[in-house]
Amino acid sequence: MCVGKSIPRVDAFEKVTGRAKYTDDLCERNVLVARILHSTVANGLVKKIDTAAAARLPGVVKVVTCFDAPDRPFPTAGHPWSTDPAHQDPADRKLLNTRVRLYGDDIAAVIAEDEVAASRALRAIKVEYEEYPPLLTVEDAMAEGAARLHEGSPGNVLKHTAIADGDFDAAVREEGLIEVEAVYRTPVVQHCHIENAVSFAYMEKGRVVVVSSTQIPHIARRIIAQALGLPWGKVRVIKPFVGGGFGNKQDALYEPLNAWLTTLVGGRTVKLELSREEVFFGTRVRHGLKMRLRSFLRPDGTFVARSYEAYSNQGAYGSHGHSIAAKGTNVFRQLYNRNDAARKCEIWTVYTNTATGGAMRGYGTPQTVFAIESHMEDIAAKLRLDPIAFRFKNLMPVGYVDPFSKNKNFFPSFEQCVEKGKAYIDWDRKRAAYRNDSGPVRRGVGMALFWYNTAVWPISIEVSACRMVLNQDGSVQIQLAETEIGQGADTVFTQMAADAIGIRWEDVHAVTTQDTDVTPFGTGAYGSRQTYVGSAAIVQATRLLREKILVHAARYTGLPAGSLDLVGGNIVNSANRVLCPLSEVATDTLYHTEYAEHITAESTAQVKTNAYSFGCTFAEVEVDIPLAKVRLVNMVNCHDAGRLINPLLAEGQVHGGMSMAAGFGMSEELLYDPATGKPLNANLLDYKLPTMLDHPPFKAIFVENPEPTSPFGTKALGEPPTVSGAAAIRNAVFHATGVAVNRIPLTPHILFEAFKEAGLV
Amino acid sequence: MCVGKSIPRVDAFEKVTGRAKYTDDLCERNVLVARILHSTVANGLVKKIDTAAAARLPGVVKVVTCFDAPDRPFPTAGHPWSTDPAHQDPADRKLLNTRVRLYGDDIAAVIAEDEVAASRALRAIKVEYEEYPPLLTVEDAMAEGAARLHEGSPGNVLKHTAIADGDFDAAVREEGLIEVEAVYRTPVVQHCHIENAVSFAYMEKGRVVVVSSTQIPHIARRIIAQALGLPWGKVRVIKPFVGGGFGNKQDALYEPLNAWLTTLVGGRTVKLELSREEVFFGTRVRHGLKMRLRSFLRPDGTFVARSYEAYSNQGAYGSHGHSIAAKGTNVFRQLYNRNDAARKCEIWTVYTNTATGGAMRGYGTPQTVFAIESHMEDIAAKLRLDPIAFRFKNLMPVGYVDPFSKNKNFFPSFEQCVEKGKAYIDWDRKRAAYRNDSGPVRRGVGMALFWYNTAVWPISIEVSACRMVLNQDGSVQIQLAETEIGQGADTVFTQMAADAIGIRWEDVHAVTTQDTDVTPFGTGAYGSRQTYVGSAAIVQATRLLREKILVHAARYTGLPAGSLDLVGGNIVNSANRVLCPLSEVATDTLYHTEYAEHITAESTAQVKTNAYSFGCTFAEVEVDIPLAKVRLVNMVNCHDAGRLINPLLAEGQVHGGMSMAAGFGMSEELLYDPATGKPLNANLLDYKLPTMLDHPPFKAIFVENPEPTSPFGTKALGEPPTVSGAAAIRNAVFHATGVAVNRIPLTPHILFEAFKEAGLV
Repeated sequence: MCVGKSIPRVDAFEKVTGRAKYTDDLCERNVLVARILHSTVANGLVKKIDTAAAARLPGVVKVVTCFDAPDRPFPTAGHPWSTDPAHQDPADRKLLNTRVRLYGDDIAAVIAEDEVAASRALRAIKVEYEEYPPLLTVEDAMAEGAARLHEGSPGNVLKHTAIADGDFDAAVREEGLIEVEAVYRTPVVQHCHIENAVSFAYMEKGRVVVVSSTQIPHIARRIIAQALGLPWGKVRVIKPFVGGGFGNKQDALYEPLNAWLTTLVGGRTVKLELSREEVFFGTRVRHGLKMRLRSFLRPDGTFVARSYEAYSNQGAYGSHGHSIAAKGTNVFRQLYNRNDAARKCEIWTVYTNTATGGAMRGYGTPQTVFAIESHMEDIAAKLRLDPIAFRFKNLMPVGYVDPFSKNKNFFPSFEQCVEKGKAYIDWDRKRAAYRNDSGPVRRGVGMALFWYNTAVWPISIEVSACRMVLNQDGSVQIQLAETEIGQGADTVFTQMAADAIGIRWEDVHAVTTQDTDVTPFGTGAYGSRQTYVGSAAIVQATRLLREKILVHAARYTGLPAGSLDLVGGNIVNSANRVLCPLSEVATDTLYHTEYAEHITAESTAQVKTNAYSFGCTFAEVEVDIPLAKVRLVNMVNCHDAGRLINPLLAEGQVHGGMSMAAGFGMSEELLYDPATGKPLNANLLDYKLPTMLDHPPFKAIFVENPEPTSPFGTKALGEPPTVSGAAAIRNAVFHATGVAVNRIPLTPHILFEAFKEAGLV
Repeated sequence: MCVGKSIPRVDAFEKVTGRAKYTDDLCERNVLVARILHSTVANGLVKKIDTAAAARLPGVVKVVTCFDAPDRPFPTAGHPWSTDPAHQDPADRKLLNTRVRLYGDDIAAVIAEDEVAASRALRAIKVEYEEYPPLLTVEDAMAEGAARLHEGSPGNVLKHTAIADGDFDAAVREEGLIEVEAVYRTPVVQHCHIENAVSFAYMEKGRVVVVSSTQIPHIARRIIAQALGLPWGKVRVIKPFVGGGFGNKQDALYEPLNAWLTTLVGGRTVKLELSREEVFFGTRVRHGLKMRLRSFLRPDGTFVARSYEAYSNQGAYGSHGHSIAAKGTNVFRQLYNRNDAARKCEIWTVYTNTATGGAMRGYGTPQTVFAIESHMEDIAAKLRLDPIAFRFKNLMPVGYVDPFSKNKNFFPSFEQCVEKGKAYIDWDRKRAAYRNDSGPVRRGVGMALFWYNTAVWPISIEVSACRMVLNQDGSVQIQLAETEIGQGADTVFTQMAADAIGIRWEDVHAVTTQDTDVTPFGTGAYGSRQTYVGSAAIVQATRLLREKILVHAARYTGLPAGSLDLVGGNIVNSANRVLCPLSEVATDTLYHTEYAEHITAESTAQVKTNAYSFGCTFAEVEVDIPLAKVRLVNMVNCHDAGRLINPLLAEGQVHGGMSMAAGFGMSEELLYDPATGKPLNANLLDYKLPTMLDHPPFKAIFVENPEPTSPFGTKALGEPPTVSGAAAIRNAVFHATGVAVNRIPLTPHILFEAFKEAGLV
């Protein structure tokens, strides 16, 4: 068996040698290039665009403006389509926008023979705006009299929901309760995938073909068709190797515009590659959240009533909208539900004139977990309780079943993870030892739990189809629309398919390029769904494939099919004796003069389960109080992601997620000039993305309780590693300094203010 | 219904605008290029190659010689593999050859950064040969003491077979028989497809990928693997648009070498594009045949005994070998079998030091039909019989069933075709009017019948798999490995699929690029098989697709599946009333929260029938006797290809085939210097390929008897148009001049000799 082994990534050689073909590598020579003209106001209206000078420049093929673009709003979020309008994503943006909603909004585009001509043309376009004051914060946007960014959004609120478990007002009337309240804020951060958004589009046989670095080829196809008003089958999307996505490429970003542009030049190939700056302000970011938590506890530390109020900065356009804030309410309602305290949640998703919030690794949970786990620490301190014991006192019990998702907490995953994390970080000793640090440089340890689930059922459908194609040598191609975007999907699919079919992993060829014309339907890479949902599809297709193989093996060997099996690439009899290699049956069958058949199998798996994926982070920091500087000394993530398909890849996933968590907690934030709304650090020099040199060596520890709802016992691991790190670091700083900083990133700027307020400096 | 209508080619726009992507268009920028060093002797042995100077040149990456190439002979013919060694093609060539068998044999290769460096390197390589006299003709090669070109080929005979129907020797003893004997010769000609042989190869995930202009992607994959000694699943072949093949690309030409070269440079992309000259001498040609026919007839013109003896010039390597000559024996044995005369055939396929004979449109029948139909004319003249009446007196009767192929002559196709041809050319009047021409410029009309069959069963397996993929808008992708190579396959597949499924042809998207990783197995474009075999696959897959659609339609409409049908893109009830468009069912099914399914269907069709495809050519010529020059004045082909899927495309097929027949009969021949074996006219300037300006307007006439063994009543039309033209022209010259020229092409050089011998000049 190969599941559970750290086989090398199937694309390792291609990637480390630079051989792997990404979107730009596949683009023909001498294509047209497009560039976008971005608004230089954050909030306003384009009154007039003069393109005459630009259009006259040599090498310029076409200049189009927001006045030329179709008046057809479309959704961009990479969700499975729902035929129920109530479950559809907000459709609030156009290919080019006259109503400008962020500094850098797309108002015109140039198609030219080369990039130089395109850039010169952009500079030659003259724009007149009607300008309004930029609304950069949720508070500004919701203020009385603020300009409305989108029709039908009163107070610029995209959506507002409230949910209650139990009777909060009655519960808080209990005598002797201790109330703790605080407001927590998380920054707007960006995914910073290595490969910028890039696509090229052309027309073939009256259809539009878009080759794009996307996580969601089948969904991108649907959105392009919606944006262009085409029947969906008239669009074809091809996804080559992808240089990272982290959720940003779970939106249809510029594929619709690119598709439209090729239709304007008779279907000639047009390439649209964004610069890093454009990716920062023009694609998607993680929503900044402001969260108010109120907790009412008995003195023994049991919750009686809790409330969660959150304002999510949606930025300029709807994208995934309210669902990010909504996911946070799931964490809040479920993670500490042991004593069934009354809970109430009220959340607002609010348009502002900043970069559009979309999906980003964690999908709302890094923000909410930061608030919850900071709050747990603050409560424990206030009640003088051990923070871990306090958590377990209120933690979701083993055996809990969520009434909506039907998720079940099958195992003591939290207990196991915390135990391992404590041991690794040497928690008890350091917790005691650092308590009395009083110098200018102090150490602290902190921890945080996280809640996560797997895939998106029952919020959306979960569906994955798999096709398998048998070759003459007994090897098998597997096709799924669940995409390799750097996370190792193709490798784990290969491993699972090999074991399911009964052949060596070297004989499984995962088709890495998705092409919506031929790739079975699946919704793509998001929601940490791929291994969980893809494995169901693989197992289901395998059943059909093996059935066909064994029928032909029976014909070939003369033995009844029921007595045969396929093991290790061989046909074996009921005594497990090798009768012949699979290759013989495959070859004989394909070329048989009587019974020729190309053995393939295809099947759609619909998954109607979901699985909790739990764990924690332990962090150790050193805080230089006069410099207001934190150094991360050590960090460990402990995960129960069920059975690991490939432990080495799993470790890589965790390390990457921890790095993003550290950046989120300590250094990253997209900043805007408050007067103009112009982004201030939309580049990798000024935006402080941590690198390996900024980190201590990260440690990943696993607990492997096999998930019962999953064929290979696996569950979410893609996003969970990034969820709890920031809170653990913040709690370590709290341990080191006694200062509860309720806002990240923990930059010197923010820390200095907090330390000053606390009288430390 | 759309079958039978002349819808525009689905790829017309792409092709006329130059938008269609051919192999070279898809090749990355800055790849390595390979060029081949060809021998400058026609027969010999490479003793030594000095590559030192070449390897030192700037830009040269690698130089390899025949001494480096693996000693692993492989077959090149594009036939379905047979697990029976007796049915396998000759495996007699290596990637590079030490034993040189033609002028231009491949003895070394250079991989360089660009073409200039590669060309310079070729010139810097020094070769020493041991040289033998070139054996350019069958006679030379079979001569006592001739050097043996391949092991195990006594007298250089690749294969020699004899077959007899009835007792020839007894039959010829009948009293009063008239004997007619003659020898006919046909030239070596080349396909002259517009796109030269071109491929590029690279490695991905430990596998070799070859993108190639091939007719046979799945077969090419197998051959590459055999040549490189790899498991077949380790090779992937991708076939983009192809600029013509005509059988030449039914061999694995340079794909194996290209594949090997990339493995020598760590899998970097290597492009190998042949020049026109290399295509002429280094790929495949139509076998030149020398055929001796002896006929014994009663004075009334009925055959009593006939013999056919043929020597086929195989050239340097085995390729399709004996099967071309063997197909001629089928024509001979079946076309004039009415009176069951005794027949005997004896054929030799002989290696020589010339270009390798392979598949070319007609596959042996243009040669044999030239001989047979010339011979029929000669006999008719000798017996003073009307040549058409004489033919019908001996022609295969309606109702005849061939005992081997089980082909049945269902219809009076010959009678119908001849009648139409006669009427079009105004036969009776011109036949009488031109008889007495006696000036220096004379006119004549001639005709010839042809025999053809469809596909290759029962010689080889006939198998085609088809996959169909339903989109949300009710449109469908279809995938087959039967390839579009310019003949319109994608268009007729589209039409047949549309009618079978019950949707508009605009909603069928034929996937034109074959990729052996994902394209269902099929053997490709050859044997005029595609429409006949592909339609079986389409109909079979459609049945599965419709079944799935109607099950979901039943769920969607609440009506029983058995009462529903899919017509014109709509779900209809038993009263043919439209219930909803297919798009609604497709969308609902894909996104259904309970029953989500991506509706696809895939099935392998094995065809165990074959179908005769008959017809004739009528030609009118003007012969300038002093100039020994023939002008083709008018030519018409009449075909019964069963039901026409697309009449306009059918007409195009016929016109193209007639042009090739005219070139074969009148101008084309590959020539060699008899002393050295060096090709003399291996370029499009000196090789007299006719163009439109050389032709009169061609006429195609069809008789449409629906073929009972074929789902849409269709049968072979790809190759038949090229079979009978040369004989009709030759017979017209005979009619005009009284000179029976038994050798083509009818160039002034050949005609002058014949006219001189006949005393005309």
